[in-house]
Amino acid sequence: MRPLTVDFLRRTLAYDGTQIGPLWAYRTFGLQGDSLVAFVGRCAIPARHMIDQDDVRRGARIASPRMLHFIAEHFDTPPDLEKAVLRQRLFSTLVLEELRARGAEGLRREGDDLFTPREEKLSISIATATPVSTKFHFGINVIRATGVGVKTAGLRDLGVEPKPFAESLLEAYRREIEGVLDARTRARGAL
Amino acid sequence: MRPLTVDFLRRTLAYDGTQIGPLWAYRTFGLQGDSLVAFVGRCAIPARHMIDQDDVRRGARIASPRMLHFIAEHFDTPPDLEKAVLRQRLFSTLVLEELRARGAEGLRREGDDLFTPREEKLSISIATATPVSTKFHFGINVIRATGVGVKTAGLRDLGVEPKPFAESLLEAYRREIEGVLDARTRARGAL
Amino acid sequence: MRPLTVDFLRRTLAYDGTQIGPLWAYRTFGLQGDSLVAFVGRCAIPARHMIDQDDVRRGARIASPRMLHFIAEHFDTPPDLEKAVLRQRLFSTLVLEELRARGAEGLRREGDDLFTPREEKLSISIATATPVSTKFHFGINVIRATGVGVKTAGLRDLGVEPKPFAESLLEAYRREIEGVLDARTRARGAL
Amino acid sequence: MRPLTVDFLRRTLAYDGTQIGPLWAYRTFGLQGDSLVAFVGRCAIPARHMIDQDDVRRGARIASPRMLHFIAEHFDTPPDLEKAVLRQRLFSTLVLEELRARGAEGLRREGDDLFTPREEKLSISIATATPVSTKFHFGINVIRATGVGVKTAGLRDLGVEPKPFAESLLEAYRREIEGVLDARTRARGAL
Amino acid sequence: MRPLTVDFLRRTLAYDGTQIGPLWAYRTFGLQGDSLVAFVGRCAIPARHMIDQDDVRRGARIASPRMLHFIAEHFDTPPDLEKAVLRQRLFSTLVLEELRARGAEGLRREGDDLFTPREEKLSISIATATPVSTKFHFGINVIRATGVGVKTAGLRDLGVEPKPFAESLLEAYRREIEGVLDARTRARGAL
Amino acid sequence: MRPLTVDFLRRTLAYDGTQIGPLWAYRTFGLQGDSLVAFVGRCAIPARHMIDQDDVRRGARIASPRMLHFIAEHFDTPPDLEKAVLRQRLFSTLVLEELRARGAEGLRREGDDLFTPREEKLSISIATATPVSTKFHFGINVIRATGVGVKTAGLRDLGVEPKPFAESLLEAYRREIEGVLDARTRARGAL
Repeated sequence: MRPLTVDFLRRTLAYDGTQIGPLWAYRTFGLQGDSLVAFVGRCAIPARHMIDQDDVRRGARIASPRMLHFIAEHFDTPPDLEKAVLRQRLFSTLVLEELRARGAEGLRREGDDLFTPREEKLSISIATATPVSTKFHFGINVIRATGVGVKTAGLRDLGVEPKPFAESLLEAYRREIEGVLDARTRARGAL
Repeated sequence: MRPLTVDFLRRTLAYDGTQIGPLWAYRTFGLQGDSLVAFVGRCAIPARHMIDQDDVRRGARIASPRMLHFIAEHFDTPPDLEKAVLRQRLFSTLVLEELRARGAEGLRREGDDLFTPREEKLSISIATATPVSTKFHFGINVIRATGVGVKTAGLRDLGVEPKPFAESLLEAYRREIEGVLDARTRARGAL
Repeated sequence: MRPLTVDFLRRTLAYDGTQIGPLWAYRTFGLQGDSLVAFVGRCAIPARHMIDQDDVRRGARIASPRMLHFIAEHFDTPPDLEKAVLRQRLFSTLVLEELRARGAEGLRREGDDLFTPREEKLSISIATATPVSTKFHFGINVIRATGVGVKTAGLRDLGVEPKPFAESLLEAYRREIEGVLDARTRARGAL
Repeated sequence: MRPLTVDFLRRTLAYDGTQIGPLWAYRTFGLQGDSLVAFVGRCAIPARHMIDQDDVRRGARIASPRMLHFIAEHFDTPPDLEKAVLRQRLFSTLVLEELRARGAEGLRREGDDLFTPREEKLSISIATATPVSTKFHFGINVIRATGVGVKTAGLRDLGVEPKPFAESLLEAYRREIEGVLDARTRARGAL
Repeated sequence: MRPLTVDFLRRTLAYDGTQIGPLWAYRTFGLQGDSLVAFVGRCAIPARHMIDQDDVRRGARIASPRMLHFIAEHFDTPPDLEKAVLRQRLFSTLVLEELRARGAEGLRREGDDLFTPREEKLSISIATATPVSTKFHFGINVIRATGVGVKTAGLRDLGVEPKPFAESLLEAYRREIEGVLDARTRARGAL
Repeated sequence: MRPLTVDFLRRTLAYDGTQIGPLWAYRTFGLQGDSLVAFVGRCAIPARHMIDQDDVRRGARIASPRMLHFIAEHFDTPPDLEKAVLRQRLFSTLVLEELRARGAEGLRREGDDLFTPREEKLSISIATATPVSTKFHFGINVIRATGVGVKTAGLRDLGVEPKPFAESLLEAYRREIEGVLDARTRARGAL
């Protein structure tokens, strides 16, 4: 079992919010342990599966015709939501880097959100805790979404191909998490 | 008491590794609670204050004639080294962003290290846990350091002025941490 | 975002046990972060919303025609039920103090319960953990409740007006929690 | 092994700050597990044993010719300073109650400090974390202390005899902690 | 309240997976605090109560006509699944020891599973976390189970009487957990 | 980096209690991450390096002319002494199994101690927490120790060769810990 297993799913898969549940990767693909799974598919999250209570309050519509999705799960003991958010933020910076490396210019990150220079929203993301793990979902539009209350853009607008982009990101996150593990196994405490 | 207090010290201060100890900002400046403090000064860390045991093993010389230092402290309950490392990595990405925003090109981050396109090391960093908090130090050369076993570069080589750069970073980290707090107080769990 | 936000709701609100759920204050009022919310309303908790399994076992009837309710939520990372109980106990002592300050005599606290000198029960309380926070509910009768298996009394019997009493308590708890934060950000560890 | 062992030491013992260290009760008296130990003796804490870094900064003199001391230790896994502070605060409210029960009037608690109506300070207290436990010290003057920078008063001024007072408090804290354990072993989570 | 309460239920009870839920022993028998409860009864776990997601994935049939069941609950603060698994493993070694003490030879433990020399599976086990505790179930066949996809054996095949065997195990686990508590209240940290 | 790295040191090494300190394996051998290291050497622990405060109190002499030592380190986040003790106990059961597999009969484990049928003590062990990890030491006499206040025996008395025995144990613990990781990454919570 490796520190973090990463996988890109060949078939498309619709994201409906159930994938944020505990052990989804294991139940669905037999992929066990800390993991980051990427896949392409539409996105439509019914209110009962929304994690962000601001979305629930506002009656937000979270949907996109085609997104590149990432689902991370870390089996923290004990589970700690703050770690989930910190990892989610770190992942967001990797997405930004990877988009730039592929020629996208003027992008801006604000928390876990990415925007184009024209203030079009590229992505959605949420971090959460389960009784046995912490997880985050990061979805970036492939095709721009409409009717979601904000201007959006997608990878297609940026001229970025989802699959190689996803594969680079999976590898970048794997290295990052390996680096975190490396850092916390060579530092002594300060008294 | 705010989520995170940030401060730039006007006077120079030498970093000798004692500043990574618990409550340094409080003991020294009366700055209480979660904080990020920046200051300029030389760097020389004797082996007994080194946190990274790889440095100790290799008999590394950690020194720089003039660095811009950042010391973060978070009063996690309980203290958790992994959070410290995750925050340190996130801070490293902010440093990289801020350098780019000031015209530096081709920089590369690897874990908590920043490099110029000529593979010169710009920075040093360590994260650690104390019995009451988690902390990280991030130091970026103002003037390049010599005799430390690797090629280095500094802010001066990049044409970046330490003070305004530091102030932007302090504000960027403050916003980032506020965003983390925001994210973890609006998400429900996933069962 | 302040260490603890407190609020007294002007409109009455029935307590039915759903308010102990995670992020209730945020979902309902947009009140984000650690908080203590007070409101007046009747109390009737169906068995499926009871947290105390002793109540469930005994088939207890938890009801009151008019209570002053307090709901606290703290976003501990990780959530820790013991902290919730300790805070609940501390809050109970503040309630007792505030009642005395308003002339009530001979009151007695036992755990999280308050009694009059005639052994009438004034209050009900429960502490619990959610996947993202810890919470407690403290309800004190305004009007005495009947048919609940024990003798009860209420604020009216003590000549205490709910609103100013609640406002003093909100402020007292805010100070207390600020004091706890102060204490844990100035103490070093003991080795 | 009981949830909390309490003990009143017959012989006097000077408090010099070393008693806040981990396992003091076990090393010194063979008293194992969670405990609250009371003893009478003078108090003089050299700077190197001070836990509160505000005292260190101010160059405070922490001393008293004769105090009633309480040392609590809880073997939390993991140790969590916030729990230590919450328990310390709860203990402070018990001290206040017990003083009132013995006729002292007009006393005021502010955080972990107790004051007479004439704003004389009665007590000192600190909570801390060790690598294996959390602890607090609570000291209340028997005889008033002088030369410590604030007006003080002691149990003698309040007409309170240390030993029976201590024994009541030990028992009150034992009941309180037992109540906390009771509360956290009968509540289900809220989802 | 003792460190661990143990109990052998006189009446038979069918295990259907609901007993792994939080506070089952308290809700059902009023048995409060950390506990290990043993009982005899058939076993049939519908998919919706299965904890092991491998069983769910494989559509496993978990059933036995007559098993000796053990349910442990520990009120860890915070709950930590890894502790639950470690305790479950330790319990498995005690089961093995106790079977040997009663003459069973050539038994083999692999993780939480016990096998006869003929590779017949004797037991099933799962560890889990609840919002307020950690738990494990360990079931050992009394009569061998059929139609469960593997060869099985039971206590009857080993000539072991369930009740005295269970009583020895309850006592062995009680001693073991007491020993763990003893060990963690006499060791100092290493810096 | 594997879940647990195990290593048998070819050269002898005296155990003096410093090896229980954080990151010993990394500082000394560059062995990073969770690990179990075995070596042969004499044992003499000065009081200042004793972890068990019972040994300190009794003025115990902990020494042996030749022992087989095991040092485990797990980088728990946060460090939790209870996990260290649970793993230590589990390791003790593996030692017992391995000795039996090599023909030793009638051995008895009590907590972390192993005894021969003649009540000779075979082993010493301690578990502790560091600011960044949890650790245990398990030492088993190769040659019997004298002058330590109890009757002892060693591997030689049991006819067990240290090296192959150690190698089997290293592998058994590696499998055990891998099994623990497996178990906690396939179980859902119970609500």
